[in-house]
Amino acid sequence: MYEGPVQDLIDELGKLPGVGPKSAQRIAFHLLQVEPPEIDRLQAVLQKIRDGVRFCVQCGTVADGELCRICADPRRDRSMICVVEEPKDVPAIERTREFRGRYHVLGGALDPLSGVGPEQLRIRELLTRIGNQDDGVDVTEVIIATDPNTEGEATATYLVRMLRDFPGLTVTRLASGLPMGGDLEFADELTLGRAFSGRRAL
Amino acid sequence: MYEGPVQDLIDELGKLPGVGPKSAQRIAFHLLQVEPPEIDRLQAVLQKIRDGVRFCVQCGTVADGELCRICADPRRDRSMICVVEEPKDVPAIERTREFRGRYHVLGGALDPLSGVGPEQLRIRELLTRIGNQDDGVDVTEVIIATDPNTEGEATATYLVRMLRDFPGLTVTRLASGLPMGGDLEFADELTLGRAFSGRRAL
Repeated sequence: MYEGPVQDLIDELGKLPGVGPKSAQRIAFHLLQVEPPEIDRLQAVLQKIRDGVRFCVQCGTVADGELCRICADPRRDRSMICVVEEPKDVPAIERTREFRGRYHVLGGALDPLSGVGPEQLRIRELLTRIGNQDDGVDVTEVIIATDPNTEGEATATYLVRMLRDFPGLTVTRLASGLPMGGDLEFADELTLGRAFSGRRAL
Repeated sequence: MYEGPVQDLIDELGKLPGVGPKSAQRIAFHLLQVEPPEIDRLQAVLQKIRDGVRFCVQCGTVADGELCRICADPRRDRSMICVVEEPKDVPAIERTREFRGRYHVLGGALDPLSGVGPEQLRIRELLTRIGNQDDGVDVTEVIIATDPNTEGEATATYLVRMLRDFPGLTVTRLASGLPMGGDLEFADELTLGRAFSGRRAL
């Protein structure tokens, strides 16, 4: 619809997830009007991302150095490892302030149809971490926090099988149930079923 | 929440219009995973935008050369000029296929509180275009297609006053009324009022 670089920019922006044609146009015209230093900053961070982002050698999340801030923090409990699928799950759990242990990022979930088997995930690294003690401390609990969907559940089941032979290790899974603040009548049947089977004595 | 360039990228993306923190994070992790050439293409178009975009010397819309494709097209009717606020209004009208004349982009609407007076808009250029004939053809109709809001209406009123002394020139305004496919009961009172005052004999 537009001529020259404006249309090229709209096309490139439209390839980004969650950016439809209208948003792409809105962002493009915004960028036409901003001061050049603002575009420079965007270009600079894109260049850094293009040059490669570092991942923590221990847990696999995004890091600025060899270890991420959490793995490098001596105050974090080394006896607990929370296993998540992606780096973006780490800040989500951190925001709850419920967990003071460390993380292990798998890099996805088992999905044989898309060619993701155990070898494609950081499962061997997890077993090594637990087997070698995590930084000199016995790991006593692994919390599996994969997504509550088909792939995440399959991954959890696989991990339980791999972990059950470690002596003195408890393997737990995040609870499934009704979301807080929600309305029981609007919960889907799978969630409501899980809430029933996971009911607790008061 | 993240370390290093990933957080910087999320911060920069979050400054774009319509991109909230969640979308910024989603786009950032998408860009972490794409192939470098995709980032290169995004960088290249940003660079072109940064170097400056050309605007049609006649109508003021985004152009690849001196004239935009519409002004350069000899098949477009030179006796009609449709006045819009922004370049993005041009493709919106083009999609209707109702208009075969040419455009004039004001570059905004009158908004004294934000310091936008007639001098800040391309109004003098419009008067020159009409006074000099548009490319050798008498302009017989100017269609004012500014937005149907306070600033757009004020701009339309101002333009009518400036244009009424041109001999043989009809000045029209896009109709306001109920949007097609909408429900009368959900129309706001201003729109419904306009639909009444603009009613037509059948």
